Amino acid sequence: MKFCPTCASKVSFRIPEGDDRERFICDDCGEIHYQNPRIVVCSVPCFEDKVLLCKRAIEPRYGKWTLPGGFMENAETTQQAALRETREEACARIELHGLYSYYNLPHINQVHLFYRASLLDLDFGAGPESLEVNLFRKDDIPWNEIAFPAVGNTLEHYFSDRLTNQYPLRAANVILSPDNRRIIQPAD
Amino acid sequence: MKFCPTCASKVSFRIPEGDDRERFICDDCGEIHYQNPRIVVCSVPCFEDKVLLCKRAIEPRYGKWTLPGGFMENAETTQQAALRETREEACARIELHGLYSYYNLPHINQVHLFYRASLLDLDFGAGPESLEVNLFRKDDIPWNEIAFPAVGNTLEHYFSDRLTNQYPLRAANVILSPDNRRIIQPAD
Repeated sequence: MKFCPTCASKVSFRIPEGDDRERFICDDCGEIHYQNPRIVVCSVPCFEDKVLLCKRAIEPRYGKWTLPGGFMENAETTQQAALRETREEACARIELHGLYSYYNLPHINQVHLFYRASLLDLDFGAGPESLEVNLFRKDDIPWNEIAFPAVGNTLEHYFSDRLTNQYPLRAANVILSPDNRRIIQPAD
Repeated sequence: MKFCPTCASKVSFRIPEGDDRERFICDDCGEIHYQNPRIVVCSVPCFEDKVLLCKRAIEPRYGKWTLPGGFMENAETTQQAALRETREEACARIELHGLYSYYNLPHINQVHLFYRASLLDLDFGAGPESLEVNLFRKDDIPWNEIAFPAVGNTLEHYFSDRLTNQYPLRAANVILSPDNRRIIQPAD
C-alpha cells in the first residue's frame, strides 16, 4: 500500500499512537488501514472409501492435487464458502459434517479451514481452476503430488480417523523452516 | 475504497473478467483489490468454577461485559492472537485448551473464534480497552449486560459442558433478523 484508498494521499508505515505495531497511515486524512489474515475454506468430499481431489489448473502448484477450496468471501459463512468452492472447483454438491481441521500459515497471513463432507452424487467434473477431478482411495492418492502440506496432513488424518469413525478437530500451524521448507506443527 | 492503494488512480466497483462478483478495480493499473472477512479471536479464561470477563472501555458496547478478544493480526497464529488479546485486555496469562466455538457474522464480514483456556495465576487487571476485569461464577455473570451474542452463547455452552467435562466444538452463525436483532443460528 502506497496511497490512501480513501483520499489518494501518500501513506506511511508507522506505529499509530496507542498501538504497538506498524500500520499504513494516511499522511493527510490520518486514516489507519489495518491489514489482517485471510481465510481459505476447503472441503474433504468423501464417497464410500474415497476422497475427491482436484488437479490445479492455476498457480501456485499448477498440476498438483488439492482438496477443493479457496478464499472466503465477504457476506458469506465458512460453511457457504466450503459449498461454493467445492461447486466451483469440482462442480460437486456436498453435505458438510463440521469443521475437521484448521491450520495457521503466519508466513503468508492465512488461516485454512477444512470441512469434512459427503458427496451428494457422482456428477462432478473440473471447474475452470481445475485440470481434472477424481475420486481416490487411500492407496491411490498421489501422495507425492499434493499441492499443499495442510491438504496432505488433513488427508492423512482423514484416512486414519476413518478406521475408528471418530473425527476429532485437528489444529496445526504450517511454518517455514530455516531452509524454507513448510513444516506441519501441531497446535492447541 | 475510492482510490487504488498501489497507484492512487480512481477505482471502480465492478465484476472482473472471469469473476462472478463485484470488486474494487483500478481504472488505470487494473489491479483488483479483494476484500475478505476478518478473524476475531477470544479466550474463555477459566479458574475453578469461574470465568474471566472484561467490561468494555471502548465502543461498540461500551460498559458491557465480554470475553477478552480482538482482531487477529498478520504474522501471528490464532492461538497467539488469543494469548495476546487476553494479555492486552485483561493483563492475564492463560494456557489454551483448544478451539471451543466459532461464529460466522456475515453481515459484518467477520469470523469469531473462542478458545477454552485456564488462567495461569490470579494476577490480572484492566488493560487500556477494559474498565474492569473480574472472575464470575455462572450465577454471578451479568447475563443481561453481555456485549455480544456470540460471547453469551459461548458462556452458556461452557457452563453447560462443564457439568459433563466434555467440550465439543460449537459452530453457529450470528445473523440479523428482519427487525435488526442479532440471532444465533447453530451451523454445521
